[in-house]
Amino acid sequence: MSTPAPPATHAQLLERPLFAHLATARPDGALQSSVMWYAWDGEFIRFTHTTTRQKYRNLTHQPVVALSIADPDNPYDSLEVRGEVASIEPDPDGRFYRSLQERYGLDYPITDADVRVVVTVRPTTFVPVTGGYTEREAAAARDAT
Amino acid sequence: MSTPAPPATHAQLLERPLFAHLATARPDGALQSSVMWYAWDGEFIRFTHTTTRQKYRNLTHQPVVALSIADPDNPYDSLEVRGEVASIEPDPDGRFYRSLQERYGLDYPITDADVRVVVTVRPTTFVPVTGGYTEREAAAARDAT
Repeated sequence: MSTPAPPATHAQLLERPLFAHLATARPDGALQSSVMWYAWDGEFIRFTHTTTRQKYRNLTHQPVVALSIADPDNPYDSLEVRGEVASIEPDPDGRFYRSLQERYGLDYPITDADVRVVVTVRPTTFVPVTGGYTEREAAAARDAT
Repeated sequence: MSTPAPPATHAQLLERPLFAHLATARPDGALQSSVMWYAWDGEFIRFTHTTTRQKYRNLTHQPVVALSIADPDNPYDSLEVRGEVASIEPDPDGRFYRSLQERYGLDYPITDADVRVVVTVRPTTFVPVTGGYTEREAAAARDAT
């Protein structure tokens, strides 16, 4: 299955070590929003997580997510990604977790490698926001003036 | 119905004019995550929105949300709020929208006051995150070492 590409203007938000706010759905219908590290390889977005937390249960129950990343230099520019969970796999020795530590400039012991997993998200929709407006909203605002 | 209070350490994230990432659920089961202005009165969180957008349809279909706010000075400190939509009411003349503009230091014409609404969220759960860990995660990390 092919995945869409992020708009060239906003791909840098995936490439930089910023913070994603990850939306997941709980089995009881409530929602969660969590600040997360991520890695982007040009096709998939990956998160580190553990099998012992509620978010893991959410992802196995309903394997869809959305996430948004705002540019810290200008929070009115952001990227929303909607997607599906392509896989949840063990992270032997916390290797992926360690690569995220390096990406984010941190280095500390990993004490929970036995329950660490790599959550791989396949994007289905990218919604770029520029100056506070999605493309659709900007077009509507132009029509209204 | 009484609402819980945010932890004293993290209430400032609601008080400051920061950016909330708002998770909503689409009728088809997909999720959305949107960067939003907000106002906090000590009990409710309010957003400006319009009746013409997908997020409005999401909120009327499934009136639950989650939002997370990261401290721009230290994104490892953040607050997650889970809640329910208490009301969606018209915003005559865009008065609430204008109050948000003032809160965020902006001033521009409101061209869509006829479709503007105020979305009021009643928090049901606050999850403070300090140094990247929720209280539950910090306790588990202490147990592991």
